Amino acid sequence: MVRITGKRISESTIHRLSLYYRLLKVLQDEGYETVSSKDLADREKLTPAQVRKDLSFFGQFGTRGLGYPVTELRQQIAEIIGINKKWNVALVGIGNVGSALVSYKEFQKQGFHIKLIFDNDQRKIGSFHKGIEVHDVVNLRQMLNKYNIEIVIVAVPGAAAQGVVNEVVAAGVNAILSFAPTNLRVPSHVTLRSENMAIEMEHLTFHLTNENLYYTA
Amino acid sequence: MVRITGKRISESTIHRLSLYYRLLKVLQDEGYETVSSKDLADREKLTPAQVRKDLSFFGQFGTRGLGYPVTELRQQIAEIIGINKKWNVALVGIGNVGSALVSYKEFQKQGFHIKLIFDNDQRKIGSFHKGIEVHDVVNLRQMLNKYNIEIVIVAVPGAAAQGVVNEVVAAGVNAILSFAPTNLRVPSHVTLRSENMAIEMEHLTFHLTNENLYYTA
Repeated sequence: MVRITGKRISESTIHRLSLYYRLLKVLQDEGYETVSSKDLADREKLTPAQVRKDLSFFGQFGTRGLGYPVTELRQQIAEIIGINKKWNVALVGIGNVGSALVSYKEFQKQGFHIKLIFDNDQRKIGSFHKGIEVHDVVNLRQMLNKYNIEIVIVAVPGAAAQGVVNEVVAAGVNAILSFAPTNLRVPSHVTLRSENMAIEMEHLTFHLTNENLYYTA
Repeated sequence: MVRITGKRISESTIHRLSLYYRLLKVLQDEGYETVSSKDLADREKLTPAQVRKDLSFFGQFGTRGLGYPVTELRQQIAEIIGINKKWNVALVGIGNVGSALVSYKEFQKQGFHIKLIFDNDQRKIGSFHKGIEVHDVVNLRQMLNKYNIEIVIVAVPGAAAQGVVNEVVAAGVNAILSFAPTNLRVPSHVTLRSENMAIEMEHLTFHLTNENLYYTA
């Protein structure tokens, strides 16, 4: 088990760890046994110094001149980001976004098991999506507890989202991924990630608008 | 027009500008005329120094002791991130994710106009989604040109994504948002953002796995 204590890790670093994890899979498949920080950097359009700094948070992996052992590094990163185990996930809201998530095969492969689906639409309650029954959202708090749900995905309209999040927090779940286009408040012990497709688009328009701008990764 | 030259702007800064833009709308609605860097920081869980640094990239907005003028700052950020105009957008792939995007009202409100939809499924070609006709993807390059599309959203299966991206690049479009769960290659003059829901989930599992870890925004 890799221990990380007293270090300050940015969300950007966590994001890059996820990217390294995926890249190391590609390298494994291509038959590489070791990889240098320069190779990792080149493939992710980063600097070797950045790669070494990211990986140094977790102790000394690499050997100078030999690089990092691909399989071992991938396994260590999996442990660090917590995807070497299964996670019990619930989904609230089975509209277009919710349906896309339930059908998303990479989720299951990576250990994210959607155990429960909730909605408030009587026409959807009782129906099945990929074999998972849709439950009435009025039972949310009680069922999250009963099924030991660790992560909740909120894919409901903006106006309903804070109410759902409050129930999720009250149930003791500490990790929420929201697709609702609204600002949400959670206590500081809860981790909330908000997906906002409009914000992704704004990265694009920023670059289109500022074509000659230098920018960093 | 705000000019930004010779500065290096990180993707994290661009992301925070989008968040400030949204927060300033909330402040406008609440009747605030000015806002301090501390207020902005508190609401976004950042430090006032970070806020001042982000906003200083674009010249001097604020007045010491008085804070930033809310309406003007919001307008300036809109100009900087390029959402003070309309953008012609095309969508490739009208599955669950594509359908969610077409139905997403915030898109339209922010000036992202989905003008064209493409798919390769004969059952979908010729159908309409929110009044937009679905075209055969074989006509992608030619139609992107004809309709002056500036941004393309790629929501096709992983195996098809690179082929679509190549056509988009060949059509001269310089901004792509991908939902395909695969690594994509584009020339350096093209801006590509990849949405990967599994990576978002890994931010959550990282925090669940490293509960006592200090981390920075």
